[in-house]
Amino acid sequence: MTRKLHLNAFLMGVGHHEAAWRHPRTEPARLTDVRHYQELARIAERGTLDSVFLADGVALNGNVGHNALGGLEPLTLLSALAAVTDHIGLIATVSTTYNEPFHVARKFASLDHISGGRAGWNIVTSAGEAEARNFGVVRPSHADRYARATEFLDVVRKLWDSWEDDAILGDRAAGRYADTGKIHPIDHAGEHFAVSGPLNTSRPPQGHPLLVQAGSSEDGKEFAARHAEAVFTAQQTLREGQEFYADLKRRLASYGRRQEDLLVLPGISPIIGSTEREALRLEKELEELIVPAYGLAQLSTMTGIELDEDALDKPLPDVPAETEGAQSRRKLVVDLARRENLTVRQLIGRLAGGRGHRVVAGTPEQIADQLQEWFFSGAADGFNVMPPILPAGLGDFVDHVVPELRIRGLFRHEYEGRTLRENYGLARPASRYASGREAVVAR
Amino acid sequence: MTRKLHLNAFLMGVGHHEAAWRHPRTEPARLTDVRHYQELARIAERGTLDSVFLADGVALNGNVGHNALGGLEPLTLLSALAAVTDHIGLIATVSTTYNEPFHVARKFASLDHISGGRAGWNIVTSAGEAEARNFGVVRPSHADRYARATEFLDVVRKLWDSWEDDAILGDRAAGRYADTGKIHPIDHAGEHFAVSGPLNTSRPPQGHPLLVQAGSSEDGKEFAARHAEAVFTAQQTLREGQEFYADLKRRLASYGRRQEDLLVLPGISPIIGSTEREALRLEKELEELIVPAYGLAQLSTMTGIELDEDALDKPLPDVPAETEGAQSRRKLVVDLARRENLTVRQLIGRLAGGRGHRVVAGTPEQIADQLQEWFFSGAADGFNVMPPILPAGLGDFVDHVVPELRIRGLFRHEYEGRTLRENYGLARPASRYASGREAVVAR
Ligand SMILES: Cc1cc2nc3c(=O)[nH]c(=O)nc-3n(C[C@H](O)[C@H](O)[C@H](O)COP(=O)(O)O)c2cc1C
Ligand SMILES: Cc1cc2nc3c(=O)[nH]c(=O)nc-3n(C[C@H](O)[C@H](O)[C@H](O)COP(=O)(O)O)c2cc1C
Repeated sequence: MTRKLHLNAFLMGVGHHEAAWRHPRTEPARLTDVRHYQELARIAERGTLDSVFLADGVALNGNVGHNALGGLEPLTLLSALAAVTDHIGLIATVSTTYNEPFHVARKFASLDHISGGRAGWNIVTSAGEAEARNFGVVRPSHADRYARATEFLDVVRKLWDSWEDDAILGDRAAGRYADTGKIHPIDHAGEHFAVSGPLNTSRPPQGHPLLVQAGSSEDGKEFAARHAEAVFTAQQTLREGQEFYADLKRRLASYGRRQEDLLVLPGISPIIGSTEREALRLEKELEELIVPAYGLAQLSTMTGIELDEDALDKPLPDVPAETEGAQSRRKLVVDLARRENLTVRQLIGRLAGGRGHRVVAGTPEQIADQLQEWFFSGAADGFNVMPPILPAGLGDFVDHVVPELRIRGLFRHEYEGRTLRENYGLARPASRYASGREAVVAR
Repeated sequence: MTRKLHLNAFLMGVGHHEAAWRHPRTEPARLTDVRHYQELARIAERGTLDSVFLADGVALNGNVGHNALGGLEPLTLLSALAAVTDHIGLIATVSTTYNEPFHVARKFASLDHISGGRAGWNIVTSAGEAEARNFGVVRPSHADRYARATEFLDVVRKLWDSWEDDAILGDRAAGRYADTGKIHPIDHAGEHFAVSGPLNTSRPPQGHPLLVQAGSSEDGKEFAARHAEAVFTAQQTLREGQEFYADLKRRLASYGRRQEDLLVLPGISPIIGSTEREALRLEKELEELIVPAYGLAQLSTMTGIELDEDALDKPLPDVPAETEGAQSRRKLVVDLARRENLTVRQLIGRLAGGRGHRVVAGTPEQIADQLQEWFFSGAADGFNVMPPILPAGLGDFVDHVVPELRIRGLFRHEYEGRTLRENYGLARPASRYASGREAVVAR
């Protein structure tokens, strides 16, 4: 079987471009309309994409004066998408820093049941300071957030394992619903959590919902190498993409994992036109709709330095290294500005499309060329597709880029698997408590 | 306009009777099948019921060896029900003891958007000790749980108010998405919580999702009088029902609320037959399927004393008064045993149908008579309907009892309102931050 690439549709309001809401082809009033997201999920499914993904933060981040923010909580939304789709994977972001493992294990187990094995969890540690202020705490340090995340994952996985697959007997005649010998307390007692278990939702169809991660710091990559099965990442150049890919895959062995146990999915915002000229026109239209005040506020948050209108036509000032927030994002932004000698205004324009993700404008063939190149030169196992405007940009991708990828033998014609794991080509984990699995428990 | 009663369908796995899963008319394998619950919601909607409700606890409660437990988390499930219904209200249980107000405000705001204004929250304080052990804490005292709940509600309501109704401008031409002067930090700093806000989901269609509560202790009733708009309650006799009703309504004035601002909905498990004999046969069938070991375990939990097989044919031993758990439930059980001089086995039989709620077996007319009597003698504004087996028992209620109630002029023929609040006849709260609302802020 030839190697196939995997595609995730990153759903973001009415589009990833920060000016998408001003573009005549979007309807920003649909930001809190479930039908908008249901339409997006159906389009992705029409294109046999692996999954859709919803980002999240637990604070109003960004300047809502100039962008369409304030949408729906992902997990709550995804079960409404599960209800109107049959195949597409459903990946929601949930933070380990401001949640309890019992709730998170239970909600993802529930979504996995509801969707028939299509749930995935984008595990984030919440880099923002505003988030901490909604939970009455000072933002924990970068290292502490990842330490908590690591133990959090241990607990959640134990809870997902707490019901063995064959625990339910359903023996009406004998009055035995379950074999309680196959439902295990987890009795976890660690640094951050003490959780007795078992979970009060039976084992999810996938065993464990798919685990996704997107941190790029040292701690982030170690965490991914240990737990993640798919990794989202922002990489501007092929070289950086290759380095990141090799780096992450190299780390897997020390956790007893194989190369194919983790898929690397760099982000790409495809600006699609039927001609290159049409694509560039759309890119230009969006650029002209940028509100400079918004871009400045975003860039100030990303870099940690205050930037005002006076800064617009100068180079980016010196930026202190980040230690406690989102380390990798800040580095990416500064590197981009320096590499291409950009003014602040130009940098804002470059970031507006994908907040640091790669933006490619062109014909469906040109986009496919880009995907193919990264896929075959050790930079990607697939892609996180971030359409500039929604739903139009996703429709264009599915109707024009996907067929091109199929013709090239790079992408499926129909769903082979039943679950998200199966479509991503990943194994279903057995319960650590199942008999014959003692070796795993001990590990 | 004549006074109409309100009906909520309490959905519980394959039925409220503890032996429902053993009855030939149920399919216990559907416990984690979303289609089962979607079918139930559609049946309830066919009957123009006000709402469906899902209970919840954050531990595996009860003896899963002998009952169908381990189902889905309610909030996650309800948005999948929203997706396939148009009118029915959707009420989920969430605990204030083991959650954060920011998350809870956001999830209910999201469900309210997704359902077009049909979300309701059954606020519980989690009486069980097993629940505390899943969150690494010792169960807080009864008083502390209610103190936390009270502040929790303050925070959640502020967050729901943090976006004024007209905060979103959506002015593309001017590049102004929202009027940030109408999106307010809440800057709550209290005993239990410090939350900056604003919420990152815009104001829910109902202003505040409907607030439901079911505590019956002193603290519970005070809490309900202050916050709840609908109250579920277990009342065995008309007299107790009347007392509870009057007691709760009397408390409203001190919180500046009117009698009609809170609906009292006692539970009833209707065992329906086309003849009385058929109803009694169904009741008998279920009784014969009871697993005594299960009933004993349940009763031990409810009363706080260990009961074994030897206790079955004796009167209930002395039971110490409960101070920290579910006070009202224990009292109800002991009162029932003493009032009717029941043996433990008989008591188990009486509780098996509705865990302390009233069970009425009879024809649709007889059931309607009961509802009518309570409704007209100051014991109820409506009912929490708890079918013994599901979906069959809900179908019987909708197809036979509802028409009878309509004929008597007691129940709607079609939905009048668009939102859950409108169907319950309750006002939509304005944002405390809206101009002209200063009086409310100060209160
Ligand atoms: C495609 C992509 C999506 C992300 N989605 C989220 C998100 O939804 N919520 C969030 O808090 N962080 C999100 N992040 C940020 C990362 O999870 C991570 O917190 C960030 O990269 C900082 O971690 P680090 O210091 O390990 O790099 C995303 C990153 C990428 C590349
Ligand atoms: C109809 C009904 C439904 C209830 N549902 C739940 C529930 O889902 N979860 C829960 O923890 N408690 C539930 N309870 C229990 C109450 O919320 C409350 O915790 C209990 O009555 C103890 O509180 P009290 O000491 O104030 O009476 C329910 C009670 C009733 C009457």
